[in-house]
Amino acid sequence: MEIELKENEEICDLERKGYKVIQDKEKFCFGMDAVLLSSFAEVKKNERAIDFGTGTGVIPILLEAKTDGEDFVGLEIQKESVDMAMRSVQMNNLGSKIEIVEGDIKNASEIFGKDSFDVVVTNPPYMSENNGIENPDAPKAIARHEIKCTLEDVIREAAAVLKPQGRFYMVHRPRRLADAMELMRQYKIEPKKIRMVYPYKDKPSNMVLIEGARGGRPMMNIEEPLIVYDEPNVYTREILDIYEK
Amino acid sequence: MEIELKENEEICDLERKGYKVIQDKEKFCFGMDAVLLSSFAEVKKNERAIDFGTGTGVIPILLEAKTDGEDFVGLEIQKESVDMAMRSVQMNNLGSKIEIVEGDIKNASEIFGKDSFDVVVTNPPYMSENNGIENPDAPKAIARHEIKCTLEDVIREAAAVLKPQGRFYMVHRPRRLADAMELMRQYKIEPKKIRMVYPYKDKPSNMVLIEGARGGRPMMNIEEPLIVYDEPNVYTREILDIYEK
Repeated sequence: MEIELKENEEICDLERKGYKVIQDKEKFCFGMDAVLLSSFAEVKKNERAIDFGTGTGVIPILLEAKTDGEDFVGLEIQKESVDMAMRSVQMNNLGSKIEIVEGDIKNASEIFGKDSFDVVVTNPPYMSENNGIENPDAPKAIARHEIKCTLEDVIREAAAVLKPQGRFYMVHRPRRLADAMELMRQYKIEPKKIRMVYPYKDKPSNMVLIEGARGGRPMMNIEEPLIVYDEPNVYTREILDIYEK
Repeated sequence: MEIELKENEEICDLERKGYKVIQDKEKFCFGMDAVLLSSFAEVKKNERAIDFGTGTGVIPILLEAKTDGEDFVGLEIQKESVDMAMRSVQMNNLGSKIEIVEGDIKNASEIFGKDSFDVVVTNPPYMSENNGIENPDAPKAIARHEIKCTLEDVIREAAAVLKPQGRFYMVHRPRRLADAMELMRQYKIEPKKIRMVYPYKDKPSNMVLIEGARGGRPMMNIEEPLIVYDEPNVYTREILDIYEK
């Protein structure tokens, strides 16, 4: 399908099933956090998944490629991103499997109804400190800082749209781990699995992948460490496998 | 100093400053959890530390060897362990620096008073499941299961005896991490630092070291992974360093 690109846009190859995604030229194609999250999340046959804050739609497109899920929704508040994500879905002929919805995470359970998804995935804004942001309406600020929604909004709405025992997958920063776990428990999403991501085997973690289950019983595992680089610019075998598989 | 051993006892060398500890012959000399905790915990000059549930006293003895702390208390509920720990302190001529106290963690703030320690360390019973324990009065059961005290008792009393900004160090199982962090926040001990211990670099974590600060502000780090074995029976360089330093 022929898709029109705007002046500031380019196409990135996801190197998976020939899928591509439209991106702003000024930005990275997509972050490692999106790739790791889409490999960490499990969406089973006949299951329905939603991505809270989908941006350019890279996560639902990767989930469609990597999992057996039935259908996928990407929820995004920024009009410009929604427009790009919709054209990316068309470009990959995924219109029957992926729906991009313009809307606010804070209203997710109003928009979609309660108990309506088997899986929620999210790569939310990481930063809670909103002081000193020069332009809080800038798309980049909205994607990175808790301007339009807080971590509590994300977790509350995830709990609301998940079916009982539905699964929640999030990538976040280690510094917010205590906040994330406390809020998950507050909204009855029990933390079940954590995977720490370390840039090098002898460096502190800079990313954490969390799985929770709505109404799950308390019992969690911390999986083997995920190390990104063997040495500068040299990915570990596992990271190469995640990018390739 | 000549110390009398009972029939079931033997002496283990801590391989540090010539220190030794009296142990039950039937048991391991001491666990790796005690060694890792005593290296993870920091006790600074002029500071006073207490070990909740000190057992044979191995942790205060190791802390005296490894840190600059001023004095150390070991609190233990089991009379037999208290007796062993007291004789170990004598044997190492540490009576002026380490005090062993027979008592219940649940009453720690009554025994010692509030705001009385700079540091609390603890290697508490790991298991919350007390069903099917054949002999709940057995010393081993009391050391391993939450029979005499729960994780909540430990954290509540730690918060009570700690001075403001005092530090809490605990070793526990990954499966209880969500419980630990939730309870720490409930009692105003903010999680500040976590170190995950992995038996091998490609295996799930089996131990977690946590540092909290009483009244600390939310902001935590997850330190580099601590890997125990390079291959079966071969410790990593870091573990050898911890045992030797």
